[in-house]
Amino acid sequence: MGEFDLIDRYFKRKATGSAQVVLGVGDDCALLAPAAGQQLAISSDMLVEGRHFMPDADPSGLGHKALAVNLSDLAAMGASPLAFTLALALPPERAADPAWLEAFSSGLLALAGTHGCPLVGGDTTAGPLTLSITVLGLVPPGEALRRSGAQLGDDVWVSGTLGQARLALGALRQEWRLPPDVLHAARQRLERPTPRLALGVALRGVASSAIDVSDGLLGDLQHILQASGVGARIDAQAVLETAATGASGQGAGSIPQDRLLATTLAGGDDYELLFTAAAAQRDKVLRAAATSGTPASRIGHIEAGSALRLQRPDGSELDPRQYLGFDHFA
Amino acid sequence: MGEFDLIDRYFKRKATGSAQVVLGVGDDCALLAPAAGQQLAISSDMLVEGRHFMPDADPSGLGHKALAVNLSDLAAMGASPLAFTLALALPPERAADPAWLEAFSSGLLALAGTHGCPLVGGDTTAGPLTLSITVLGLVPPGEALRRSGAQLGDDVWVSGTLGQARLALGALRQEWRLPPDVLHAARQRLERPTPRLALGVALRGVASSAIDVSDGLLGDLQHILQASGVGARIDAQAVLETAATGASGQGAGSIPQDRLLATTLAGGDDYELLFTAAAAQRDKVLRAAATSGTPASRIGHIEAGSALRLQRPDGSELDPRQYLGFDHFA
Repeated sequence: MGEFDLIDRYFKRKATGSAQVVLGVGDDCALLAPAAGQQLAISSDMLVEGRHFMPDADPSGLGHKALAVNLSDLAAMGASPLAFTLALALPPERAADPAWLEAFSSGLLALAGTHGCPLVGGDTTAGPLTLSITVLGLVPPGEALRRSGAQLGDDVWVSGTLGQARLALGALRQEWRLPPDVLHAARQRLERPTPRLALGVALRGVASSAIDVSDGLLGDLQHILQASGVGARIDAQAVLETAATGASGQGAGSIPQDRLLATTLAGGDDYELLFTAAAAQRDKVLRAAATSGTPASRIGHIEAGSALRLQRPDGSELDPRQYLGFDHFA
Repeated sequence: MGEFDLIDRYFKRKATGSAQVVLGVGDDCALLAPAAGQQLAISSDMLVEGRHFMPDADPSGLGHKALAVNLSDLAAMGASPLAFTLALALPPERAADPAWLEAFSSGLLALAGTHGCPLVGGDTTAGPLTLSITVLGLVPPGEALRRSGAQLGDDVWVSGTLGQARLALGALRQEWRLPPDVLHAARQRLERPTPRLALGVALRGVASSAIDVSDGLLGDLQHILQASGVGARIDAQAVLETAATGASGQGAGSIPQDRLLATTLAGGDDYELLFTAAAAQRDKVLRAAATSGTPASRIGHIEAGSALRLQRPDGSELDPRQYLGFDHFA
């Protein structure tokens, strides 16, 4: 099958659900007509086999995740999805594997359909398996949730539950074992993360800053602190409780406390929203969480200075440096 | 050096020259404010080491070309550049090579600066060297040059000169030898192609369809014919003359005629514009060519049916199938 047939068969869909797509896949460019009075949010991510996923990864989950991590960036900006492009390098054995392509494109396009975010262009080539997605979204002028808006005294919030993706990864790597029900729920989080788009939109005008948790809670919080020129004090117990209330809650008791703390504070791949909001906005944050069907937990507050402090229930401090996430080239 | 430092040092520039960039690199998404009454054109391309460029490729030229091939898609749509994103997978030895990174980013950002097309986001990761660029452009509603607009009786035109990139590639692969001056000029075309953006904009309202020549003249013409539901008759001699008037013109006499014909009709990597326009528009096409400083040659016309016919000066026909370009998975 040729390059053009491959696009036609697996990736070309009528870009339904969006009057803003004037022209989709198949010309030199796609043409979009964004609504007047909107700003365009744009983000790119690249996933490489062996680094971001294993060769035997479920292709449907891979398609889902490749788009989900990009949609998560839109969510963290408070933007609504508009459209996306896919650049795909495929080794010959993948290009010649219809079952793999069918599953990958199905997982990808199902999530795209859920969020009304059509595939409008891209590129395929031979090469080591690499997925590069660029997503476009819309946000009203001045309402985007930037990293730089955190203010002294703001609450620090996080959506949903943290640490499960890292728990699953550790189990798959045989770093540790998990009870079957805990592993099942945790794998879902690792392989099919949920971009918090509805919460992001609901937080417009409510949150003062936001980021999505991809590298680990404290590492991503550092980006907000640096961009905003502030420090923060985080309550380790409140963070731990987000893990314990997750789908792994039933079995969380079987996981050593120090591992639970590490995977929660530094695990990464959570794709939850980490955001700040003035204390006067607490009711509105909880309402945004309720209307979007996404729980939100208050885990600390913004302080003067630039330090990130991590506090035990007894008031003593933990060194946060061990939880500052990973760096792809470190 | 970490991932974030790498972006900061080599790729983060103040997105100057564009009031439309509200927020550039460094948040979850970039924010753009496209002008009202414009459509957004979007295109993605992916370049893989060993397939699209050699490991010893000049990094500055590589940066130039990675963006140029995307800008060429905008040109073929008649769109003006707005901004671009870069996703970059780097093997450890490249990530640790400041000279390579400096040259690559310089080549990339110099071309971006020339066309007022700022880098507004992206991703870096470890992996086999892979460059994936997504470019955004603007075009007034209804004025985009689509592949599907060719009409019976239209002239077929091509900009600039064809075949030099393939001549250079063949010489570098030692398939043949070229005189030094011919090789020098041809390598420039291969390594630093010129996106025909000014011509694309000048052809709005003049051309009936357009595509950029990336896979080879006849192969790309087939895309126009299929999208438009028409056939074409191409004058092989007129196409050959575009090669002879190129910078290789001086030395073209030293290249066998059949090789010149093959590289011109099927060479690829030319990034010229192939377009159609009504015969009544000939003066306007020539004026668009003159105002944009880009020569344009008339090489044939659109016919009924779906066949692509290739005609010798004596009226006899050549079989075009041998010149229908290559397919990445064929």
